[in-house]
Amino acid sequence: MIIALDAMGGDRAPSEPVAGALLAHRELGLQIALVGVPELVREELAHHGPTPSGIEVVAASEAIGMDEQPVQAVRQKKHASINVAMGLLKRGVAGAVVSAGNTGAVMASALLNLGRVPGIERPAIGTMAPYTGRGVLVLDVGANADCKPSYMVQFAKMGAVYMEHVFSIERPRVGLLNIGEEDSKGNELTQEVHALLKESNLHFVGNVEPDRVHLDPADVIVTDGFTGNVAVKTTEGVADFIFSQLRATITSKLQYRLAALVMRPALLAMRRRMDYGEYGGAPLLGVDGVVIVAHGRADKQAIRSALRNANGVATSGMLEALHRAFGRERGEPEPVSSGETRA
Amino acid sequence: MIIALDAMGGDRAPSEPVAGALLAHRELGLQIALVGVPELVREELAHHGPTPSGIEVVAASEAIGMDEQPVQAVRQKKHASINVAMGLLKRGVAGAVVSAGNTGAVMASALLNLGRVPGIERPAIGTMAPYTGRGVLVLDVGANADCKPSYMVQFAKMGAVYMEHVFSIERPRVGLLNIGEEDSKGNELTQEVHALLKESNLHFVGNVEPDRVHLDPADVIVTDGFTGNVAVKTTEGVADFIFSQLRATITSKLQYRLAALVMRPALLAMRRRMDYGEYGGAPLLGVDGVVIVAHGRADKQAIRSALRNANGVATSGMLEALHRAFGRERGEPEPVSSGETRA
Repeated sequence: MIIALDAMGGDRAPSEPVAGALLAHRELGLQIALVGVPELVREELAHHGPTPSGIEVVAASEAIGMDEQPVQAVRQKKHASINVAMGLLKRGVAGAVVSAGNTGAVMASALLNLGRVPGIERPAIGTMAPYTGRGVLVLDVGANADCKPSYMVQFAKMGAVYMEHVFSIERPRVGLLNIGEEDSKGNELTQEVHALLKESNLHFVGNVEPDRVHLDPADVIVTDGFTGNVAVKTTEGVADFIFSQLRATITSKLQYRLAALVMRPALLAMRRRMDYGEYGGAPLLGVDGVVIVAHGRADKQAIRSALRNANGVATSGMLEALHRAFGRERGEPEPVSSGETRA
Repeated sequence: MIIALDAMGGDRAPSEPVAGALLAHRELGLQIALVGVPELVREELAHHGPTPSGIEVVAASEAIGMDEQPVQAVRQKKHASINVAMGLLKRGVAGAVVSAGNTGAVMASALLNLGRVPGIERPAIGTMAPYTGRGVLVLDVGANADCKPSYMVQFAKMGAVYMEHVFSIERPRVGLLNIGEEDSKGNELTQEVHALLKESNLHFVGNVEPDRVHLDPADVIVTDGFTGNVAVKTTEGVADFIFSQLRATITSKLQYRLAALVMRPALLAMRRRMDYGEYGGAPLLGVDGVVIVAHGRADKQAIRSALRNANGVATSGMLEALHRAFGRERGEPEPVSSGETRA
């Protein structure tokens, strides 16, 4: 299987995507199509010596910038790298797409080129929270700033299918991100979603407060895209703050500097663990193809990790299971609460 | 000035409130009324030797538990410690109330006994984010799970008055917690609030993304109570996680344990810095009196810190300024201290 990598996407493109692709090929044996402006990509490849046969360049005419208006840019720049990559996926040439580009543009391009899995109202962006064990999938973390309750019930179902197929978890535990444990807590939206999840046939374990996410309360945590994005960015900010404080502390006294030298490998490993980039990027769930968004700041290691994850998801049967799960819902042997709002 | 401390409030009451009051009296010279069940409070006091003259016990008949339904409990238990403390404030016997009890019950008791500052639609809970420098006031962090745009504009104004008077910041910078920097970003609520804040006469500096809160982007950060509560609890969770990882790392190898011994004071100081308890508790803004809620897990140091903060706020003229600010908005002639509403 070939993975299409948007070589022009991200703050450090094309250098880090190209380096990450070579790493993934060398270490994991993945076959990768580098989609980008050929001269730029080839120039970058040349820095790394002869290009191995598992890496090919697919021509695109331009890139979509991190600050462009996503929907407009995707429609106007028909031959932008992300659109060309999605085209490879659509035609079955590639089995997955990875991009560290503008998340909104990746989503817009996926919707335009691939469409949604039938039955899914709104695709969501998932992310694996960087915590202990096998981790927890949080969604939506930014695709839908305003959500109807029915969207969030679908996010829960998509998340459960993902964790079941990609992480081999039977009947994944689904939690609802909320500001209190009791059923009655929360705002109007979470109260409604709570009631719907309780009625669903998912393995719903109730509300999860944000200060408990790292204690393995669930395998999937559902939230609206606004709150999820706030939670992810708060996590990044707090980690940045603590590690910058730690650096300042360490350099403040000679004996701390010496002690830190001893602990350096452990501290670096910890910092890395908090880095979302390490966790293989964020899947777009609900679009009709395997699409992984890496962090805009992704370095070659993070790109490698996203490529590995894309390969894992594409070979897991997740997408087919999503079709079955929502097709069943539409084909109506099993009754589902939110059905009528979608018909 | 006397500060009324709810001696029955919090997970560790009455021992930590009593110990914290004694600490605040000894170290800061504060006069404190310990409001609680007299036998329990006196028994606790007895552990600390003779009670100094600046500490008195005011009798209440019972406590409101952390898990009780707040409004109901406050109405039914007329002589609960939090109600008696609010009564002291209402009658002008005390200048401020501090409680580590059920936040909902403290808010309900404040509303029942003190009422709102005229012109304010909804009181909010503020909290000082535990970051560098003088810190940033984030509000609302939990009083209003569902907000109208107008509430949030009032939160901004209350926050600005607070930072101006309590922290002596001229024209405090007001930011809106949001998931993108551009004006057009966010959900419907933040988009509307953004437009209103732009038109206001506040020093509005635009949207603040959660991963930038620690970089001193504003003095006041406004959000709805649901999102604010998620942000605060996410911060607590991430800090807990990182420090528990750090502990695990340290104990994993002998050389790390030795290095950590050297760094121990610095690490403890850092951990403490991330502790909201250290930051003097959370002011209830918009109720007609100075009320500070300490963390439910507050220890004596956190109680001492909340008492010091309560004293600072009560002597800052903040409450009177709030009356002036919202009185002006209502078209009233330049008033008038809040004397008559509280006397």
